[in-house]
Amino acid sequence: MRTKKLHIGVLGSGAGSNMQSVVDAVQVKKLNAEINIVISDVAGATILDRARTHNIPAHWLDCSAYRTKLDGEAERACIQLMNDHGVDTVVLAGFMRIVKRRLLDAFPNRVLNIHPALLPAFPGLYAWKQALDYGVKVAGCTVHFVDDGTDTGPIILQKTVPVLEGDTPETLHARIQEQEHLAYPEALRLISAGCLRVEGRRVIMNDSTPDASAR
Amino acid sequence: MRTKKLHIGVLGSGAGSNMQSVVDAVQVKKLNAEINIVISDVAGATILDRARTHNIPAHWLDCSAYRTKLDGEAERACIQLMNDHGVDTVVLAGFMRIVKRRLLDAFPNRVLNIHPALLPAFPGLYAWKQALDYGVKVAGCTVHFVDDGTDTGPIILQKTVPVLEGDTPETLHARIQEQEHLAYPEALRLISAGCLRVEGRRVIMNDSTPDASAR
Repeated sequence: MRTKKLHIGVLGSGAGSNMQSVVDAVQVKKLNAEINIVISDVAGATILDRARTHNIPAHWLDCSAYRTKLDGEAERACIQLMNDHGVDTVVLAGFMRIVKRRLLDAFPNRVLNIHPALLPAFPGLYAWKQALDYGVKVAGCTVHFVDDGTDTGPIILQKTVPVLEGDTPETLHARIQEQEHLAYPEALRLISAGCLRVEGRRVIMNDSTPDASAR
Repeated sequence: MRTKKLHIGVLGSGAGSNMQSVVDAVQVKKLNAEINIVISDVAGATILDRARTHNIPAHWLDCSAYRTKLDGEAERACIQLMNDHGVDTVVLAGFMRIVKRRLLDAFPNRVLNIHPALLPAFPGLYAWKQALDYGVKVAGCTVHFVDDGTDTGPIILQKTVPVLEGDTPETLHARIQEQEHLAYPEALRLISAGCLRVEGRRVIMNDSTPDASAR
């Protein structure tokens, strides 16, 4: 299947394990993409070190004017950085701020997020702990396009994991993360293959899923 | 694994395909149980015919004093009928009324429901349509103990199904129902094997899951 190379900009606040899964998928040629820039709102975030290790431009962005969102001057600077680096696809990887309309409009239907729950169940923080406390028997993760809400955008794909007897928040989170690391490259592969279109809330597959080795 | 024979009372308003799955599991000795009585709030419901076909006592209960719940005189009559028939486990199978505290207290942690979604997502009516409209990629069903809320009780088990391209509410519903027909007997088997205890909102498995042939 023909694919189009993605130029990815990553926004992250933490360890960046989801970014790593994208880097790995590119490296083994399972994803036709390049990570052009990694931006963090946290000066010492591990995701920036990880980016530098892979010779990816890594930028800290001072977002301190706002506590929980990417807005104002920082938002404009972020878009500028992304554009300067030729980004066409924005990947949120543990980015702990709400992105706003200006960024979404700059990359229409090209801002993706991954959430550690089977949305619409358990939006928001510590979703794996919410799931465990609720007592569900199946948990999972969701890759979705970002819209104005929190974890409400059109869903690209979801992967499930069982909740096991004796699970702690940590063991369940680890099991979900394993699936996240498969899910994000898979979702990006669908975009690179031009398979997806958004109709209202639904993400429609134009064609059959590309096989894992396509590029 | 040693199991204890369940004496089941079924409450249903419709076709009773979930009751049928329990009948079938008993018949092929995959579930140590007997359906002692089937009660419907709908006089001509197919579930009553189905019960009679299997020589199960079938009763219509006039609930017309209320529109959406089982309450008052009908509730008392229902409990009386269940007790008269030696019921120890109440199975809701497409019962379109809210059951209230009096019935729940008469069978503590022994009133079960099945819901055609991965709760807590999509409680309420036409859950499969809600799921399709929302655009999830994974749907499923949930067997849970009934509590005072609507589809909020402690979860015994959940089964997933993929949402496929081109799914209609009908095709998705049919795929979920296939899993429902496995899930309900499986949940009852866990109860019959004495495997479950409820701690707060969580259903804990005391022991390993009994294999499918246990009785």
